[in-house]
Amino acid sequence: MPPRPSKNKKAIVLLSGGMDSTVSLYWAQRRGWICYALSFDYGQRHKKELRSAARVARLAGIPHQTVRLSLPWGGSALTDARKPLPHHAEKNILKGPIPSTYVPARNTVFLSFALSWADQLGAEAIVIGANAIDYSGYPDCRLPYLRAFERVSNLGTRLGSETKKKISILAPLVHLTKADIVRLGLKLNAPMEATWSCYQGGRTPCGRCDACLLRERGFKSVLAKKKGRT
Amino acid sequence: MPPRPSKNKKAIVLLSGGMDSTVSLYWAQRRGWICYALSFDYGQRHKKELRSAARVARLAGIPHQTVRLSLPWGGSALTDARKPLPHHAEKNILKGPIPSTYVPARNTVFLSFALSWADQLGAEAIVIGANAIDYSGYPDCRLPYLRAFERVSNLGTRLGSETKKKISILAPLVHLTKADIVRLGLKLNAPMEATWSCYQGGRTPCGRCDACLLRERGFKSVLAKKKGRT
Repeated sequence: MPPRPSKNKKAIVLLSGGMDSTVSLYWAQRRGWICYALSFDYGQRHKKELRSAARVARLAGIPHQTVRLSLPWGGSALTDARKPLPHHAEKNILKGPIPSTYVPARNTVFLSFALSWADQLGAEAIVIGANAIDYSGYPDCRLPYLRAFERVSNLGTRLGSETKKKISILAPLVHLTKADIVRLGLKLNAPMEATWSCYQGGRTPCGRCDACLLRERGFKSVLAKKKGRT
Repeated sequence: MPPRPSKNKKAIVLLSGGMDSTVSLYWAQRRGWICYALSFDYGQRHKKELRSAARVARLAGIPHQTVRLSLPWGGSALTDARKPLPHHAEKNILKGPIPSTYVPARNTVFLSFALSWADQLGAEAIVIGANAIDYSGYPDCRLPYLRAFERVSNLGTRLGSETKKKISILAPLVHLTKADIVRLGLKLNAPMEATWSCYQGGRTPCGRCDACLLRERGFKSVLAKKKGRT
């Protein structure tokens, strides 16, 4: 079990505006962490998710910062609108190579900013919504990677090296399926309707990209089970 | 001994424009790495160092990118001109607490961008000028920290997880004194005159900040030994 904070312990939450990070935020709040949300404008084609992030942070009643950054070397269909988005659905993601939506070392960049804020604020946790589905697709969503970053966090900061405080990287969804995440979100009253998943970032979700397909499957699976029970 | 590259192997070099990163770059080139320089405009008061970085990269004949970023939570005398700069000199730095010029998790942020570029470019090394003097002062210049980041690099990237290539974090100066670094720079014909160290970033070096004092001591020590020999 991940650490339960004692009174007034702070956590930085990586909040993309999607379902996973939103559920992670509500999970952390429920466990007693005082949360600070951090989002990134990194040239993603679905910049629209940032409006969702702001809305979720407002609903959760927590401070929220958005950092603007550029990874000028490109290398991802998620930041280059000329590259087509893949449409695999879950099965292929779990078996196939790293998808073209992978942004080189993105989670390391995001976690490093969260770590900087944590070191400055005295926050003893960083919460990230990495999950079981991403697990097989993106290398920077796997548990050994997150454990390695935890070590970096404690060796490379004032907080970790000069005080008795330790920094934990909390990934509450890492071994959950999308259906499990939907269930957890409903249980926590997380504002799922305020979140945005679609990689296209159009007016309405495209219904075809991996993010849409995974989200839809999660909800369908939960609804089917509920129906089966009644 | 750090790995010697086989033919055409690429390395990302963190190039601040100071003496240490410049000597590290020339060290890597001498060992056969094809180098790509990366600098950061992060609101440092000595932004002047970026002109030195560009000059050094030009002299070395290598590609050079500067990433602009913001760590909006502050927390360092190096990015906040209202905070006074410390004037300790080497002896106190080695014994005292982390100095006020420490920027929260700066090297993790810098290394994460270098890692993103390395993953995109297929570069198998990241070169950083962390050194023996910084070692005791800044937590993110110590060897165990750098080893931990190396593990993050290999677990959290396409390059490290999908190919047989591994990413090394090379810190050739980590156990050298400033005098050793001056000596190495002279031996490698590194353009020391093009570098900038002073934290104040004025027209001429202030001669009082830690960066000036350490640099001066390094040169003095080398000159004294040379004089002693003649």
